[in-house]
Amino acid sequence: MSLLAPEKPAVSVDMYSMTVPVLVRALKNLSHLLDKAEAHVEDNGLKPEDMLGARLIEDMLALVNQVQLATDTAKGAVARLAGVENPSFADIETTFDELHQRIDKTIEFIKSLDRELFTGAETRDVTLKVRGGELHFKGFDYLTGFVLPNLFFHVTTAYGIIRHKGVKIGKLDYLGPR
Amino acid sequence: MSLLAPEKPAVSVDMYSMTVPVLVRALKNLSHLLDKAEAHVEDNGLKPEDMLGARLIEDMLALVNQVQLATDTAKGAVARLAGVENPSFADIETTFDELHQRIDKTIEFIKSLDRELFTGAETRDVTLKVRGGELHFKGFDYLTGFVLPNLFFHVTTAYGIIRHKGVKIGKLDYLGPR
Repeated sequence: MSLLAPEKPAVSVDMYSMTVPVLVRALKNLSHLLDKAEAHVEDNGLKPEDMLGARLIEDMLALVNQVQLATDTAKGAVARLAGVENPSFADIETTFDELHQRIDKTIEFIKSLDRELFTGAETRDVTLKVRGGELHFKGFDYLTGFVLPNLFFHVTTAYGIIRHKGVKIGKLDYLGPR
Repeated sequence: MSLLAPEKPAVSVDMYSMTVPVLVRALKNLSHLLDKAEAHVEDNGLKPEDMLGARLIEDMLALVNQVQLATDTAKGAVARLAGVENPSFADIETTFDELHQRIDKTIEFIKSLDRELFTGAETRDVTLKVRGGELHFKGFDYLTGFVLPNLFFHVTTAYGIIRHKGVKIGKLDYLGPR
């Protein structure tokens, strides 16, 4: 603790701070992992589609789907917590460039939302449509029990697929710069 | 919003609520994933050590290590944020039972900490010893930029290894009951 500590702490524990910078950082790290995968493809004369279509086992989703789901999780999270419309992105990407564009669009949307929109988001009612019905959450449980586990699931699974394909990446590529 | 909303919201956005229940839930889900993996081993007459030693690629850590690291991440997180001693667990597990015991011990430690210990944890100085030096964080950045990404990384990688070995699990086994 500094003797010159300001009255208002520099660190604020609130829904915005727990959501926006965390999601943006994870998405930037995902972009970085894709860069590593693409460089590996180029350096080894491989087909990009073999990397983008790679999966950990045949009935699990491919790298391209993990990126789509990570971005869907992130944009849906901020839209629902901030109470704004969730933009719809068609799942049509077939190249690294298109995946980067999707990530960039998602980050742009997340950053476009004012901090004030997240005031009271912890008690906001969130409804998710899923196969066979609806899931109902309060905002806080949605964030901690659904959004964050899902977001890191898809980024980590992207990491696992890329690593499984022999690309030289390590934990710091996943955690990102500090 | 209810017309009868109490003055104090039922949901509190604080360091304890963002840490303790989130870590406990992830560890319980990890335990559940191990149960699924063990049942698959038994049902198919496989060797437990082949599952526990499985990895996504030869130079990546095995399932047993992912469980050790998930628990290390969780116990270190609460110890550092609450300002108490971090219990040391030797990395000696070789069976599913021993991994469950490690997870249970970790959950017991996490739950033993009073909520009050986390007051002001967002600005607490956290130092991590890593190869080649030290990492310095404020508590909030440690939680959102290190603990949560790492915890979900190791649980998801455990999931990925188990799934890669052909065990029938799905996203709900990872997310856990609501």
